[in-house]
Amino acid sequence: MSEMETNADEWVAAGDGVRRRILAHTPDMMSVQVEFQQNAIGAPHSHPHVQSVYVVSGRFDFEIDGKPVTLAAGQSAIVPPNAVHSCVNIEAGTLIDTFTPRRDDFL
Amino acid sequence: MSEMETNADEWVAAGDGVRRRILAHTPDMMSVQVEFQQNAIGAPHSHPHVQSVYVVSGRFDFEIDGKPVTLAAGQSAIVPPNAVHSCVNIEAGTLIDTFTPRRDDFL
Repeated sequence: MSEMETNADEWVAAGDGVRRRILAHTPDMMSVQVEFQQNAIGAPHSHPHVQSVYVVSGRFDFEIDGKPVTLAAGQSAIVPPNAVHSCVNIEAGTLIDTFTPRRDDFL
Repeated sequence: MSEMETNADEWVAAGDGVRRRILAHTPDMMSVQVEFQQNAIGAPHSHPHVQSVYVVSGRFDFEIDGKPVTLAAGQSAIVPPNAVHSCVNIEAGTLIDTFTPRRDDFL
């Protein structure tokens, strides 16, 4: 079995009104909890890692590779490798971002 | 951009008291919602796909590659490729399983 860490890590600031913490990871995969205060923005960015987004609570307008996607609690989308993506929340809430491989830049 | 499907699929029976539905997928990744009724069991199994588990609600005793891991709502773990894993729920609830690559056997 690969090294595995399942204890939630410390919160890290991730922009204005946004914070994240690592929930679990191995070299292959990482799950991260991301909290957005009302009107907080996930600025456009990209990375080679494939990412899934799952909305635990709140409501978010995403743009993924130029396409608008609105996701409410219980919904999910996949961000392809190197696709530029961003989000604005309509209602404050929490996302679970899951990356493959691990975001070593988050460690 | 790869093909992407973000509409939740139909529920599929996945054992006694367990059902699942696909939330989103591309060839690289798939997110799946799995609901467990009280005392339902996820039987031991393995697959070459790497998997993350995120507990939306309930409380689950997992065994992952021979190691016990108890996860409550908001917690997560990673299942390495080909690791045998199983779970028993202590409180009925819902998981989000995220796989890489996609579980084509679920389509």
